[in-house]
Amino acid sequence: MQSTMMNLPLTITSIMEFADKVYPNQEIVSVTLDNPNHRYRYKDAFKRTRQLANALESLGLKQGDVVATMAWNDYRHLELYYAISCSGMVCHTINPRLFDEQIEYIVNHAEDQWLFIDPLFVPKLEAMQDKLPNIKGFVVLTSEQHMPETSLRNVHCYESLLASHYALFTWPALDENMASAMCYTSGTTGNPKGVVYSHRSTVLHSYATSMPDAFGLKRQDVMMPIVPMFHVNGWGVVYSVPMCGAKLVMPGPRMADGAMLTALINQEKITLSAGVPTIWQALLDYLETSGETIDSLKRVAVGGAACPLSIFKAFKDNHNVDVEHGWGMTETSPLGTYNNTEDADFDLSEEAYNQKILRQGRPLFGVELRIVDDEGKELPWDGKTPGAVQIKGSYITESYFKLEGEFTQDGWFETGDVAFIDEDSRMQITDRTKDIIKSGGEWISTIELENHAVNHPDIAEAAVIGVSHDKWTERPLLLVVVKPGKSISSDEMLAWFKGKVASWWIPNACEFVEELPHTATGKLDKKVMKVRYKGYVWPEFA
Amino acid sequence: MQSTMMNLPLTITSIMEFADKVYPNQEIVSVTLDNPNHRYRYKDAFKRTRQLANALESLGLKQGDVVATMAWNDYRHLELYYAISCSGMVCHTINPRLFDEQIEYIVNHAEDQWLFIDPLFVPKLEAMQDKLPNIKGFVVLTSEQHMPETSLRNVHCYESLLASHYALFTWPALDENMASAMCYTSGTTGNPKGVVYSHRSTVLHSYATSMPDAFGLKRQDVMMPIVPMFHVNGWGVVYSVPMCGAKLVMPGPRMADGAMLTALINQEKITLSAGVPTIWQALLDYLETSGETIDSLKRVAVGGAACPLSIFKAFKDNHNVDVEHGWGMTETSPLGTYNNTEDADFDLSEEAYNQKILRQGRPLFGVELRIVDDEGKELPWDGKTPGAVQIKGSYITESYFKLEGEFTQDGWFETGDVAFIDEDSRMQITDRTKDIIKSGGEWISTIELENHAVNHPDIAEAAVIGVSHDKWTERPLLLVVVKPGKSISSDEMLAWFKGKVASWWIPNACEFVEELPHTATGKLDKKVMKVRYKGYVWPEFA
Repeated sequence: MQSTMMNLPLTITSIMEFADKVYPNQEIVSVTLDNPNHRYRYKDAFKRTRQLANALESLGLKQGDVVATMAWNDYRHLELYYAISCSGMVCHTINPRLFDEQIEYIVNHAEDQWLFIDPLFVPKLEAMQDKLPNIKGFVVLTSEQHMPETSLRNVHCYESLLASHYALFTWPALDENMASAMCYTSGTTGNPKGVVYSHRSTVLHSYATSMPDAFGLKRQDVMMPIVPMFHVNGWGVVYSVPMCGAKLVMPGPRMADGAMLTALINQEKITLSAGVPTIWQALLDYLETSGETIDSLKRVAVGGAACPLSIFKAFKDNHNVDVEHGWGMTETSPLGTYNNTEDADFDLSEEAYNQKILRQGRPLFGVELRIVDDEGKELPWDGKTPGAVQIKGSYITESYFKLEGEFTQDGWFETGDVAFIDEDSRMQITDRTKDIIKSGGEWISTIELENHAVNHPDIAEAAVIGVSHDKWTERPLLLVVVKPGKSISSDEMLAWFKGKVASWWIPNACEFVEELPHTATGKLDKKVMKVRYKGYVWPEFA
Repeated sequence: MQSTMMNLPLTITSIMEFADKVYPNQEIVSVTLDNPNHRYRYKDAFKRTRQLANALESLGLKQGDVVATMAWNDYRHLELYYAISCSGMVCHTINPRLFDEQIEYIVNHAEDQWLFIDPLFVPKLEAMQDKLPNIKGFVVLTSEQHMPETSLRNVHCYESLLASHYALFTWPALDENMASAMCYTSGTTGNPKGVVYSHRSTVLHSYATSMPDAFGLKRQDVMMPIVPMFHVNGWGVVYSVPMCGAKLVMPGPRMADGAMLTALINQEKITLSAGVPTIWQALLDYLETSGETIDSLKRVAVGGAACPLSIFKAFKDNHNVDVEHGWGMTETSPLGTYNNTEDADFDLSEEAYNQKILRQGRPLFGVELRIVDDEGKELPWDGKTPGAVQIKGSYITESYFKLEGEFTQDGWFETGDVAFIDEDSRMQITDRTKDIIKSGGEWISTIELENHAVNHPDIAEAAVIGVSHDKWTERPLLLVVVKPGKSISSDEMLAWFKGKVASWWIPNACEFVEELPHTATGKLDKKVMKVRYKGYVWPEFA
């Protein structure tokens, strides 16, 4: 039997039209290079979005075409998000931090037709444009008076382009499964891989992430995303904030500037923000030095990397701000889990409480999560058994753009993360599947060992890698950088782990190094280390 | 271009499996006739749901079949909701308050095959069973020891039926647009009309109603729905509460018992509840008499009828509880608008604040709302212009089960309500389209006139109806019931409106009556009044 319900598609257009109609006077505040304090309202934003839709048509673009952006978080980028997707085109957000060869690859692979770029990326694209044969032209996201001299071919000024078009536009009816946006992952190996979101996945992700135990977005919230809109879909806040009618504040390119973030928080009365741990450390450092306060801020979401307890404590103890861990990736739209910390069950000892808040949280409704062993068998949620994390849901990718291959197991996407899940359904990431050490059939978390190592007062940085071992298949090797002026023996270092981890987790050896290799994005490059220590001879055999 | 996202259906099964996996230990507490304090956990509920699914199969039921319930809010009714819908069958909840002829009509019209009923409805169904030829049998929702003697044909005891089946069951894959449940509206004219919900509409409604500015359901909430599960889909809380992992408390048949509700609130630490104004009045009356408190309760949602300001004030001033107005109907799943009252814009005078909180609120994301004039032209949201309320969305009906006809205008469902919407996007229902008085091309709200009339200290009840008028097409006639021992003249009564409404709104005449006609559900029956006063001669012409 069929229902009598209306058959209407879930589209980004419906988010835009809802915000335009129900919250027309809510504000969007942006920091841009040409205006450090730009403010307008949803109704203005979506009026300009309609002008932009006419402009896209005038450039010869049509449904299904891919339009790329290389821009920081501001109102013009928001207008592009909506105008491109709601026109039935695909908004491809490019990460400007990638290597030039990667950018060239993804622009060509995605078949981008036009590029909308911030003025500060003009030199980068000038150098690159000859290697981008499909690109028909460039639009620089600025006004005529700030328009740089440029050798870019077929170049337009964004504000002039908009000014030449009317704000009347009839948005096309769209299939909810149509592509709306795309984002490339930057893995450590091979070419970046493209994830293509749909209108449906975007609406469902916006619902899931706005729920009370996730971002919990209310109309009176003031949300400042410090997550770039070109990175993991900007945590989807460009969609969820208008859906909830909240005020949106976008800090432009100066995201790690503690002084500017503090000023924005106080000026705009930010209640909620989202970013990576390094952003929060920069903000906390500035607050400690300046003595300034951030009274309006109630909660910050953190993701992208494990957040140290010190950040949780500094926010809570000094500023009464709750820090909430989220977890996800480009392939998961991105938010898969969230750790809401105002939970009544937190009637725990301080240590147990600290363990809970450091976790990446519970799955959102909209995804299913499981952990599996090497044979793909599901493992219990007992707070101790680690397994490979698999996920599925309506906003999880099952493949990559124009790439052949099987990226799921029985319909579950393999995240590459290793985690345990506690009795409370909170996930704790313990490693990456490619880094975890499999010793005698049991798994050893390199991240946990590294965390203990860097807590040693003499240690500046540490890495643990698995190295082959005749008896145990693989055993942990600890690599440490000692702080300047300090000195410690290998035995002393290894003894540090006693009582902190199970005895069979303790590394078999410790090597002292001047520095550790890092990836372009600043993460430990264990791939390089594993190559370097491939023939490592364990001390017991030496 | 198609997205790379997984193509997974939105199903009620996914809500059940999510709650079972992520919140297995969360509690469900019920009051039933055979156990005033039944408690178990989600994992127990869904284990029994799987037993029930096997039982349904054993009764010969298959996908697409309609299974009916006549039951109050408790855990067994919840099990039926999930087992029936997730088996691909249709859960038809019957309102036992309907007239017997209406119940017979809808059981036959819906083609119900089995009826699951509370023991207290056994006599009703015994008297009715011969007129229900399609019904293959009955299941009484109780245990063997409480099973009544009955002449019902092919009758089973629910607990015995469950006990004879395993808890292993593989839920079928379902199309998200399949019918999941149905509910009949009880209009004042003609036969009840059936609305058929889908899995998709149910999931989307659950998302929309759980959002922070609607029910705002969090895992640590304890929700007690006092809205019958057979009425307007029980506000969907049987789905939204498990989706959010909150604790669910169901008061069984004793919904208007202030003492029992108070005991439940305090015993189970209810934080949030939902019901009609009469329920809240009963609770407040009991609290005032007994002097008891309800400290855990933070918010109550109210709907079904306009809620008097006195209820808002008594809850807030005496118990620090926020009352939040919602609006909807069977055809809208039901929640279309919600009035969140912790809004930062409420920096208003007391009178302006009171006006705001009495409104039915803003549209939820997931529906579109508009008000139109007689020609279907959209009207502005200016806080004063009334229009007919139309709605559309993925959880709004576009037709009725097995009924021919056009129930939408350009794809918009006509709600039959008249409202204005303020600059803040909050809707204020002012009348029903069939009751509104159209005088000289302008609209006069009978509800507003009635509210003013009953505020007169001598008036017990009042109704306003439109009666034809040669010059103005229609003019308001006031009908009043005077309080015992009181007396007032027609001129005095009409003078009461001066300064309270525009002068052209003041009724042209007032008639004193002993009593006013009411419908079966206790509402003013204006249809009867309009017939009675059809040939009314206005005093000016008399």
